[in-house]
Amino acid sequence: MSHRVITLVLVARWEPNASGRLREAALDLYTERGYEQTTVGDIAERAGLTARTFFRYFADKREVLFARGDELQHAVRAAAVEAPEGMPTMRVVAAVLDVIAELVGRDRDHSRRRQAVIDATPELQERELIKLARLSAVLREGLRERGVPDPEAGLAAETGIAIFRVAFERWITAPDERELIDVMREATARLETLVAPR
Amino acid sequence: MSHRVITLVLVARWEPNASGRLREAALDLYTERGYEQTTVGDIAERAGLTARTFFRYFADKREVLFARGDELQHAVRAAAVEAPEGMPTMRVVAAVLDVIAELVGRDRDHSRRRQAVIDATPELQERELIKLARLSAVLREGLRERGVPDPEAGLAAETGIAIFRVAFERWITAPDERELIDVMREATARLETLVAPR
Repeated sequence: MSHRVITLVLVARWEPNASGRLREAALDLYTERGYEQTTVGDIAERAGLTARTFFRYFADKREVLFARGDELQHAVRAAAVEAPEGMPTMRVVAAVLDVIAELVGRDRDHSRRRQAVIDATPELQERELIKLARLSAVLREGLRERGVPDPEAGLAAETGIAIFRVAFERWITAPDERELIDVMREATARLETLVAPR
Repeated sequence: MSHRVITLVLVARWEPNASGRLREAALDLYTERGYEQTTVGDIAERAGLTARTFFRYFADKREVLFARGDELQHAVRAAAVEAPEGMPTMRVVAAVLDVIAELVGRDRDHSRRRQAVIDATPELQERELIKLARLSAVLREGLRERGVPDPEAGLAAETGIAIFRVAFERWITAPDERELIDVMREATARLETLVAPR
């Protein structure tokens, strides 16, 4: 038992935050040289690690940009399922959007640089669209688990992700320094006004 | 002048509706053998045409499934731009959705078979997500051309495409025989109820 604990501590010493260092190194290199011109070897070298370590964390040089997507999916599903019973569906979606904003909105400069790399590379744009579609599907599943029937669950999930997409774009392009959570809440309010029957 | 007219008529005689025949042949083969197992040569042969003719209409065997996407984009943009002045934004989006329903909702059996091929092939799912993202961008551009500012234009466009996605899925999976336009209008009404502030 104590032997195992010591081993874990040693591993941690050898490669503190290897995953985060690799992510930062990758984004730096993609920004400096371009995505196509960067290899996994380059990324590992920049992070002071080996390619073997890289592949312990990421399947390939594309995934290093999307690694936090799984974390986001888990958080979205949990937030949907765990919202108070009886909460109106779009309130649940608003709570989920707050959780997304907290996870995604921590570092605007990082998000801007990442988006610039994605915008320059069709392969990465496709990957991002797939991740967003998956996020919408996970939110829909979470809503269904609460008892929201289709098509409401699908409509609410798609609408939530639509708000996220629009607010995220605005957040990284707007000259002001607002927090993502505020941009997202404003977008939700605008959508309510837009969609309200007249 | 009269020479040119005669030439056009002859071309039309040689290959009546070549594009439509190739699309049908491709869908038949993708359904029977699978997308991966079908070549451009197979498709041309089934349609009674040559591979050279195929490449006059489509870039590759993937595009043959998405060829009508451009037509849809043009129609969406035109419907958005040409809607009566002063019409509320979500009414414009509803009018655009009617146009989409008319173009997409003509043949449910065809749509079902096409969707089954796409659902079985990740490469085609990616392509479809890109086409939908492009459709949303075109709708947003059309709304901006009417004078709708961002983020409203982006929100309304994303919401419109979200309604289309959910309604289309429902239309091809539901056991009833409703028209796509009715499913789409019902989804729009449900979204209004969902999003209405309480």
